[in-house]
Order: sequence, then structure tokens, then C-alpha cells
Amino acid sequence: MHIAYVNGRYLARDRAAVNVEDRGYQFADGVYEVIAAQGGRLIDLERHFDRLDRSLAALDIVRPCERAALRVIVREVLRRNRIRDGIVYMQVTRGVARRNHAFPAAAVPALVVTAARKQPPSQAAVERGVKVITVPETRWKRPDIKSVALLPNVLAKQQAMAAGAEEAWFVDEAGRVTEGSSTNAWIVTGPAEVVTRPLGRDILAGITRDVVLETARESNIRVVERSFTVDEAKGAREAFITSTTSWVLPVVAIDGAPVGDGRPGPVTRLLLDAYRRRVAGDAGSS
Amino acid sequence: MHIAYVNGRYLARDRAAVNVEDRGYQFADGVYEVIAAQGGRLIDLERHFDRLDRSLAALDIVRPCERAALRVIVREVLRRNRIRDGIVYMQVTRGVARRNHAFPAAAVPALVVTAARKQPPSQAAVERGVKVITVPETRWKRPDIKSVALLPNVLAKQQAMAAGAEEAWFVDEAGRVTEGSSTNAWIVTGPAEVVTRPLGRDILAGITRDVVLETARESNIRVVERSFTVDEAKGAREAFITSTTSWVLPVVAIDGAPVGDGRPGPVTRLLLDAYRRRVAGDAGSS
Repeated sequence: MHIAYVNGRYLARDRAAVNVEDRGYQFADGVYEVIAAQGGRLIDLERHFDRLDRSLAALDIVRPCERAALRVIVREVLRRNRIRDGIVYMQVTRGVARRNHAFPAAAVPALVVTAARKQPPSQAAVERGVKVITVPETRWKRPDIKSVALLPNVLAKQQAMAAGAEEAWFVDEAGRVTEGSSTNAWIVTGPAEVVTRPLGRDILAGITRDVVLETARESNIRVVERSFTVDEAKGAREAFITSTTSWVLPVVAIDGAPVGDGRPGPVTRLLLDAYRRRVAGDAGSS
Repeated sequence: MHIAYVNGRYLARDRAAVNVEDRGYQFADGVYEVIAAQGGRLIDLERHFDRLDRSLAALDIVRPCERAALRVIVREVLRRNRIRDGIVYMQVTRGVARRNHAFPAAAVPALVVTAARKQPPSQAAVERGVKVITVPETRWKRPDIKSVALLPNVLAKQQAMAAGAEEAWFVDEAGRVTEGSSTNAWIVTGPAEVVTRPLGRDILAGITRDVVLETARESNIRVVERSFTVDEAKGAREAFITSTTSWVLPVVAIDGAPVGDGRPGPVTRLLLDAYRRRVAGDAGSS
């Protein structure tokens, strides 16, 4: 029986419920994090907590509890579900209040933590790579806040699936890729330069993005944080995506056209290997 | 004890809950309607049902039940709460599924219906009018779909409250008002012309907006559906907002500057009176 944490209680999944007037349900007035667990260790947990704090601050939502308590809850949800390799999902909303757009005078933030068994992408999945489509940027102006207002992401991902692809890249009005529906977007250009969009209000500050930037630099790979167009991506040597659950996954086609020779490239493989070593080691995990 | 309808059951409010993996909670993957009740009659119920159908179709969410059943549920929620003057809130989401952005293969749509006692704006509220501020358009590209992805609306409304105003008007990149955070926006120009933004993907097709357009035309008031800038609004003779709960409310100030002489204008009053007569009569209600 799967167990979820909901506002102070550990409940069987089918009884894990929130009030219909939770503002997460009526207004998407909440934020979330997904954290990977490997061998029972939580990867970059503190960085996820840091980002959660930033998201909460941006929306003026009170922290549901101290970080020490949050750590205990996250571990307890993993333990009760006997999960060593998987993900933890945490959601914090502004809480329950009579429906009214403006912030309620007094609401207690709601905290939900769930977990699921999940393996990182297999070597077969890496060799297969992923196909992406490009779609117009339709999201609100603050995707840097990791809110649960994910409807445009849902529609983009579904459009990708319907097209036989695995991810959709949002493209801004200047024709430049912002990011994927649930991943950051990268290319490798002619001079073996790794390129990804700089942080700003238009993309999420991916934790895996950060770590890959660091490992690339440590591996003496040239990294440039700049925007790139769809055309540049289609003509790139390699392309890949990063996220907590995708790690580093090669992109083998964009809008049906092969990237490079249509197979995972050497720079992507190198960055994936470096990421795997980091996860296997102790760096960042706790 | 307040009663809510949740997926087939009538429950006391504090027990009215949805699963934490309801996609409305995790992805804002759902839509809603708010319907006014006056003297036990539901105002423009069928138009709200029509719009609900359009929202569901746009997101490819299956209707939770036939319209006849929905009518029964809505009336039953009002009856059980002994509400004659108030509002009914209906929310439909894609249902419960393991978290994954793409549409689940099989999910049963979730239906929640709540109600609240609420009077339409009093004459004192009309005389006071509302103050609006203007804020940059930050919403996703499809506010015509009445989704629960309302976080930008929440933030805009809160910003208005913090500024001592009651509503925020979103302004597009060309400096033109799209609509309010929970209302449609109108002005009355020099030649006694009533102006509101035409329907499109950038605003919600307000039911009250529609009705006011009709009553204006019936009253031989000239109506033009076109965009207007913030500057034009600030220099307008009158301005007002419309919504299911606001009916027709005069705007007396925009960004701190008075509209006209800073008091409700004659055209706004005329349209409010016409709307009141319509609600008091049988037209549209059921």
C-alpha cells in the first residue's frame, strides 16, 4: 500500500486527500519539487530545498515547516514506501480558504509529499534518445517560479506524445528555444561548445542544469549560456535535455529531422557519464 | 454545515476532499464555472454549461456527466445549503492518475460543486465604484479557456488589494487592456460609445460581457468591440467591469487617477439597471 504525507499525517494513497478549497486545486496557487533518490540517497536535496524556498518567497507563501522537519518527512515517505531508487514529489500550496482570488488573511500552507519507484533512464533509453517537437511558448511569464500552474506544460507534452515524440521545446517569439515542458534544453555546436539558455524569468533554474554546467566546466568542456534558435538546434552536432528524472538524455530528432547523425553524440555521453559518476559518488547527495 | 458535491457524493465541507493525485491539484489540469443564483434561480445557467463544454473540449477532458445530471447536482447543492442568493462553483478536472505530464490513458474526470451565500453588489458598492490598477499581461496564451491555472490572476488581484484597489487590468505588450483578473474591462468614450475588447484567445468570453453587449444594443447604445489602451481608458468618460459576481460595477479610478469625475457615470448606471431588470425577470434564468 503506497503511503503519502498530507498535512501532518501519513496516509494510504487512496485516502491521501486535500480539501476541495485548497488553493492549489482552485487557483494553482502552489509550488512543487521533484527529487531523485538513488540507493536510498537523495540527490541534491538541499539545492531542491533552496529552490523550494525561492518559489515560496516569490509567491509570498509561508514555509510549511523548518527544513529539518522537511528532511525527516521526505525520508520517512521513502522509508514507509520502501523506495531506494525513485523520486520524491513535494507540493506546498497556500492552503485552504473560502474561494477568493486575493491571498486569504489567514491560511495554513498545505504540504503533500509522495514518492514513487523509478529508475533513471536505462542505457537502452539513452541509446534510443528522445525525439522533441517545437511548440510556441504559451506559458505565463514566470516559469522560473516552479508553480503547479502546469497546464500549458501538460498540453505541450501531450502534443509531443501525439506526434510520436517524448518532449516539446517551447519557442519564444524571437524563434529561440526557452526550455522543454519538463526539462531544460541544450545543444552542442560546431566548435564543441555546449550551449543552454541563461537563467532568467523565462526558464526554470534546473538543478540538473546547474550540475551539468559544473561538471562540463570541470571536464574542460566549453560552456556558453546563451539562447539558441530552433534552426541552430536543428543544425547542431548534438542536442540533449536535462532534468531530475531524465538526467542527461540525448535528443536524436527535432521536429522529425535528425540531430547530427541521429544518434547520441560524444559530448552528451561524456556529460551523462560525469553526471552518473557524481550521483554514484557522494557529491551533492544526502 | 456546508455541503459540497464531490465525485458522486454530497459531503460536509470539511470532509469534501479530492485525491492528492487529482490532476487539478498537481497540474492545474481542469476548468471551472461560477454561476449566480438569485431568488433560487440560476442566472444564464445554460450559457455557463455551454462555456464549460467549450473549455472541456479545448483541453480534451471528457464531460463528467450529461447536462441534465449536472443541472440536478447544481440545484441539489443549492438546496442542501438552503441558498437562494449566492453562487455555485463547479470544477471539472481530468481526474486522478499517477503523476505524469501527458494525459493519462484512462482517468475519470473529477467533478466538484460548491455553493456560497453571496449578494450582488449593493447600491452602496455601486456608488463607491471600484479602483483598478494596471499590470503587465503575465498569463498564459489561452485565457479564453476557463482553466484553474489562475496563479497570475491571484497575484494580480493581490497586487490590486495591496495598492488599495479592487481589481487589476492586464495590459498587453501593445499597451492595450486585455481584461481584469476576474472581470471583463469596459470604457465609455467621448461619443457615448461603449467599448470592450473583442473575443479572441486573449480574453475570456464572459457571460455577463455577452449579456451586457446584448442589453446595450437593445437600449440603442452604440457598442464597439475593439481593444483600448490604458491611456484611452484613463481619459475615458466612464469605465466599468463585468462578471458573474460583479454584475456591472463602475470603475472610478485607474492607477490612482479618477475616471471622468471620479463617480459612476450615466451609461454604466443604465447598463447596470438593464442587467438588474434582466436578472429580476425571467430572461436567461432557469
